[in-house]
Amino acid sequence: MNSSKHLYPFKTLGFIGGGQLGKMMAIEAKRMGFRVIALDPNPNCPISNLCDELIVGSLYDEDSLMKLVEKSDVVTYEIEHTNTNFLKELYDKGYNIQPSPYILEIINDKLIQKKYLISNGFPTSKIYELDLSKYSQASERKHIIEDYNITYPFVQKARRGGYDGRGVFVLKTQQDLDKIIPSESYIEEYVDIKKEISVLLARDRNGNIKVYEPVEMIFAEFGNILDMLISPARIGEEIKERAKDIAIKLVEKLNGIGVFAIEMFVTSQDEVLINEIAPRVHNSGHHTIESCFTSQFEQHIRAICDFPLGSTHQHTPAVMINLLGEDGYNGRPVVENLEDVFSTEGAYFHFYGKTNTAPRRKMGHITILDEDIERAIQKAIYLKSKVKIIAK
Amino acid sequence: MNSSKHLYPFKTLGFIGGGQLGKMMAIEAKRMGFRVIALDPNPNCPISNLCDELIVGSLYDEDSLMKLVEKSDVVTYEIEHTNTNFLKELYDKGYNIQPSPYILEIINDKLIQKKYLISNGFPTSKIYELDLSKYSQASERKHIIEDYNITYPFVQKARRGGYDGRGVFVLKTQQDLDKIIPSESYIEEYVDIKKEISVLLARDRNGNIKVYEPVEMIFAEFGNILDMLISPARIGEEIKERAKDIAIKLVEKLNGIGVFAIEMFVTSQDEVLINEIAPRVHNSGHHTIESCFTSQFEQHIRAICDFPLGSTHQHTPAVMINLLGEDGYNGRPVVENLEDVFSTEGAYFHFYGKTNTAPRRKMGHITILDEDIERAIQKAIYLKSKVKIIAK
Repeated sequence: MNSSKHLYPFKTLGFIGGGQLGKMMAIEAKRMGFRVIALDPNPNCPISNLCDELIVGSLYDEDSLMKLVEKSDVVTYEIEHTNTNFLKELYDKGYNIQPSPYILEIINDKLIQKKYLISNGFPTSKIYELDLSKYSQASERKHIIEDYNITYPFVQKARRGGYDGRGVFVLKTQQDLDKIIPSESYIEEYVDIKKEISVLLARDRNGNIKVYEPVEMIFAEFGNILDMLISPARIGEEIKERAKDIAIKLVEKLNGIGVFAIEMFVTSQDEVLINEIAPRVHNSGHHTIESCFTSQFEQHIRAICDFPLGSTHQHTPAVMINLLGEDGYNGRPVVENLEDVFSTEGAYFHFYGKTNTAPRRKMGHITILDEDIERAIQKAIYLKSKVKIIAK
Repeated sequence: MNSSKHLYPFKTLGFIGGGQLGKMMAIEAKRMGFRVIALDPNPNCPISNLCDELIVGSLYDEDSLMKLVEKSDVVTYEIEHTNTNFLKELYDKGYNIQPSPYILEIINDKLIQKKYLISNGFPTSKIYELDLSKYSQASERKHIIEDYNITYPFVQKARRGGYDGRGVFVLKTQQDLDKIIPSESYIEEYVDIKKEISVLLARDRNGNIKVYEPVEMIFAEFGNILDMLISPARIGEEIKERAKDIAIKLVEKLNGIGVFAIEMFVTSQDEVLINEIAPRVHNSGHHTIESCFTSQFEQHIRAICDFPLGSTHQHTPAVMINLLGEDGYNGRPVVENLEDVFSTEGAYFHFYGKTNTAPRRKMGHITILDEDIERAIQKAIYLKSKVKIIAK
């Protein structure tokens, strides 16, 4: 590993993961003249045709991770499911891995994450340390729920591996006890959610912080995958300030370096509760590419490379929709009605370049800029109804 | 060559040239999911680490050009100095090369370009078909200038190969007859220039046209290389409309497909004269990346791929400065005071990734967005004074 403080130019960023977040970060890195190396198991992953080198290997493989850190000036994640223990060892040896893998350890197990929030006094929903998957019969589950005095509805959450709505199950009645997630889990109280919001922010080594305006997230009915993002969020100023304040205190407590996304609930009583922490650039920050002075991807690079953080000023309101693989299609992707995107004033098309589509897979996204946020929402709804990712 | 009309997704764009214009176009192409192949003689050219394939070869080499068109769904230029005759043959055989190489033929010889403008009634400065380089003695030159009744100052222009100020020589007095450009050339009358502007526009196969607002160009004292670009230009609305109208008529006359930049002079009498045509994306359109709904690079891709052209709306005023290699430095580039860029609100840093700097070589650029254009200019002047490309 190159130890020079000044990472420029031609210094090398190493990414754990080569998916769409890595690709978008690589695009910003390339614009600014950095070299990029990524580690990913898939030789055709989205970053594959715009990184300087792709190490093909498991994100858990020690040799591959070692190769990555040896070749990079600073290593970061685009996905947090990696070999945290080995990265901790490397971090302790002085390799420049940002944010610290010790933060991943807190975040990757959602029960540990929740307990961290609670023990540090951050507002979040109540939990029960009860693993329903340990009970093989629905009748046993029924009894233990009664013993704990848990009332319906409530939420079962997988401790690990949850992503894009996988690993979250809302039990509305006793009948749902038949359909629980069959893996290590805990229980969260059900929160009466008025809005889901996300606060994106960046922190550097010196403790400087830049916060983006909170965004509003609307999730797809079929699951917990982000369907539409609205920025700025349509919530009161006082709630926004409270949300930003919570996010700042949390990233300070974590001693985080880089971009973090803090997903939050605004309850029907206008409480602001932390839902989940993402220790990286995030789907809820894609609108920053076109609508903010500094995109989340550039911001993350600045933070981990010890450059001054950038302005989070949003010059134009924005709406973002994810393009998910249509149900019933697998194979080489085709974009239906792409022309509608190009015919929409202020619309930006992003296609990640995944070689295969699958139902509900994130294949791309569209960001729409418009001075009038309600008009942007209408454009987004229209494009959502027209633009489909199918397969030939 | 793939003949399918619908170029998406995973269709392949072929670029003649792999410099910074190709790199920035590749970034937009990658965002939208295209494949990119480039031809360039330099294996380490700016596009080299973000294209799917680089064909290393001369831009004049027939085998290399053939390989490029065979592998691409549509081929375009990022530099117009290429083998026009061979490309015309390929074009006539039905290969999809946009804009037509027949347009290059008109543009590449500046005398032919000028005569084209004049014979088609476009406003441009007067010329003399007189090649000073054919006269070996300054005294002979003096006589022929007198014979033609040409008065000082006047301009000698090389017919071919001019770029970034090379190939233009202003003769102020008879003494300058000693220092003429020693290549095939002609003479232009000297124009009393109040402003230099550029009109960027795109035209598709169906004749649809989208025009960007005219930008103001300020050139470096040491030569004809763009120093600062101000958008929108600080000129009256009537002049703007006249300039846009001229540009539209010219691209229609050329039957151009793709993005064109029309450089113009606004004279002290508020005449608008065409200076030069660039049949491609252009340095005077770099601000569109961050400040317009559709960047010139995306716009060009849309035009040559038969997608609807995008809005040219500029959401925030912008100033752009080129980062040129400092005099006295050759070798591996280092950016001095890069932190000043990152500390400037609304500044975007672009570094082309050229492996060597040389005096006055274009190494990168900075775009500054600011609601207040005068403040943006002040920021640009400050950064121009601080950020230097040197070598170690």
